[in-house]
Amino acid sequence: MKLKEVGEKAIVENARKIFRKGKGIRIGIGDDAAAIDLPGKKCLVVTTDMLVASIHFPPGTKPEQIGKKAVVVNLSDLAAMGAEPLGLVFSVALPRELEVGFTNRIMRGMESAAREYGTYIVGGDLDEAAEITIAGTAFGLADRNRLLRRSGAQKGDIVAVTGELGAASAGLKILMEKIPRKGYEKLVKAQLEPKAQVEAGIVLARSGRVKAAIDVSDGMAANLWHLSRESRVKIIIDHEKIPVHGLVKKFCQQYGYDMDEFTLFSGEDFELIFTTRPEFWDDVNLALKRVGKKATPIGKVVEGSGVFIKKGEEIVKLEDRGYEHFKQD
Amino acid sequence: MKLKEVGEKAIVENARKIFRKGKGIRIGIGDDAAAIDLPGKKCLVVTTDMLVASIHFPPGTKPEQIGKKAVVVNLSDLAAMGAEPLGLVFSVALPRELEVGFTNRIMRGMESAAREYGTYIVGGDLDEAAEITIAGTAFGLADRNRLLRRSGAQKGDIVAVTGELGAASAGLKILMEKIPRKGYEKLVKAQLEPKAQVEAGIVLARSGRVKAAIDVSDGMAANLWHLSRESRVKIIIDHEKIPVHGLVKKFCQQYGYDMDEFTLFSGEDFELIFTTRPEFWDDVNLALKRVGKKATPIGKVVEGSGVFIKKGEEIVKLEDRGYEHFKQD
Repeated sequence: MKLKEVGEKAIVENARKIFRKGKGIRIGIGDDAAAIDLPGKKCLVVTTDMLVASIHFPPGTKPEQIGKKAVVVNLSDLAAMGAEPLGLVFSVALPRELEVGFTNRIMRGMESAAREYGTYIVGGDLDEAAEITIAGTAFGLADRNRLLRRSGAQKGDIVAVTGELGAASAGLKILMEKIPRKGYEKLVKAQLEPKAQVEAGIVLARSGRVKAAIDVSDGMAANLWHLSRESRVKIIIDHEKIPVHGLVKKFCQQYGYDMDEFTLFSGEDFELIFTTRPEFWDDVNLALKRVGKKATPIGKVVEGSGVFIKKGEEIVKLEDRGYEHFKQD
Repeated sequence: MKLKEVGEKAIVENARKIFRKGKGIRIGIGDDAAAIDLPGKKCLVVTTDMLVASIHFPPGTKPEQIGKKAVVVNLSDLAAMGAEPLGLVFSVALPRELEVGFTNRIMRGMESAAREYGTYIVGGDLDEAAEITIAGTAFGLADRNRLLRRSGAQKGDIVAVTGELGAASAGLKILMEKIPRKGYEKLVKAQLEPKAQVEAGIVLARSGRVKAAIDVSDGMAANLWHLSRESRVKIIIDHEKIPVHGLVKKFCQQYGYDMDEFTLFSGEDFELIFTTRPEFWDDVNLALKRVGKKATPIGKVVEGSGVFIKKGEEIVKLEDRGYEHFKQD
């Protein structure tokens, strides 16, 4: 069997079997990031994400945006654990023919994003490859007992999401299909210069009221499936309640696209999905508001398994169109 | 200017200018690993290293050996700082056509190496690329005040190296030139299954007698140059004292190679070069012996700059044939 025949999930399952989980490893393979106990009450949260030019950077991405995105995708995984960033390192492989100026601009993009989130690029490695390949690792600190985990959702919880959805993937559509950007510049920017919800993640963890979170990297449907599987619960969301980015609505009306494609089945909005008890909702919502972040309740956690969506009177199973490497064509 | 025209060093210099060093960043760009202060007396040591199949894995490397090497090169950088490993994460890009079994064997190699050094693989990311590309990040803990640094060498210090040199690169020569392995299996194994001096690094740091170290990754000459530059000192080593692997001597006699090529100008032995005051030598040597590790004094640190080698009566400048990406052909 070849990789393209089995897909990414199967390999992750194999990894979970092969890599043993040692003492002190609070969270291993299978969450947004790993967490390892440190002396004291803190734990180290670590995540790695690799970006490959032909897959992750749409045509026209500026080198500064490449650098920024490499930082943001990694910080977003820390955010999903509620960790405070300590720093990042990058292993970068570049084509020999690349201009030095281009490389400097990638690094300036990394630095500018690190600065935006109050953290630092502390090290790296440089190699040669046919296409730009950037593997970042972000690490941070969190309270051991206040980690946000994929496995933390409990029946009775509200499911909520920060911000609005669909902008990044609608922006990708515009870039890939060469649709005129006029009026939709914000969508393109959401794709090329995504933001990580680092502050929101920290606020959710500190509240002590939130146990489960995941970032919207692969698409809300796929990410809800991760939550449901890891928490062994059933999740039902309400189609009407999904906070769609205003321009995405307009874009879909104008060009006849299905909004679900952008809000449910494509990712990179890097907002946070989280769950909390209904009685904590007001507290949590207020805490997020204080850092300028809106959140929308979109559903509930019940006993069972799988992810379902209420559309009008009907409740149907939500397809898990995971962002599967090796199976994309 | 293109990358192939300026080489790796120039990019690292640019990186040092672009990435600011924040409060709490004890060691940033330019050492074997970065070190960041944690609450308490410890610091987090982090390093990343990327291996690209066509550059780093000679023909015939087994998938288990690919996995092992990816772990070892990263742990070796922790060793050079005197840090105790906490864990590793890997971003891996693989060709779609690769067999799943091959991937599992890479992971088993990683797990087996992690186990050997008492540490764990705690997370990863999987992507697609034309050739196998593995970016590892290792992190560990060290006492803030006992880090081994490239900048820690002081005039009057002895320069020493652990173990013996030349085996890994002689093994590479055998593989690349298809020289019969008979009698030289150990050299090939040194190339394909290198070891990291994690325990030796920890012992050196704990002794409190050693301030400077670097691992022999690029070749002793290049690594001594790093030490000399970062410590702003002159290093003089004695050609006669270089501990050459016994089989490397034999191999060079049989095939007419220059031993310096393997002991000075090629790397991947992953032994540790370190410096210490002459009065501490016995202590340090004894501490290493207790963990079964031999060390050899090979030279001294004096005022000035550059790296020199004593050959008979002559002292000549040692060429810095750094392992330069982008300038290898």
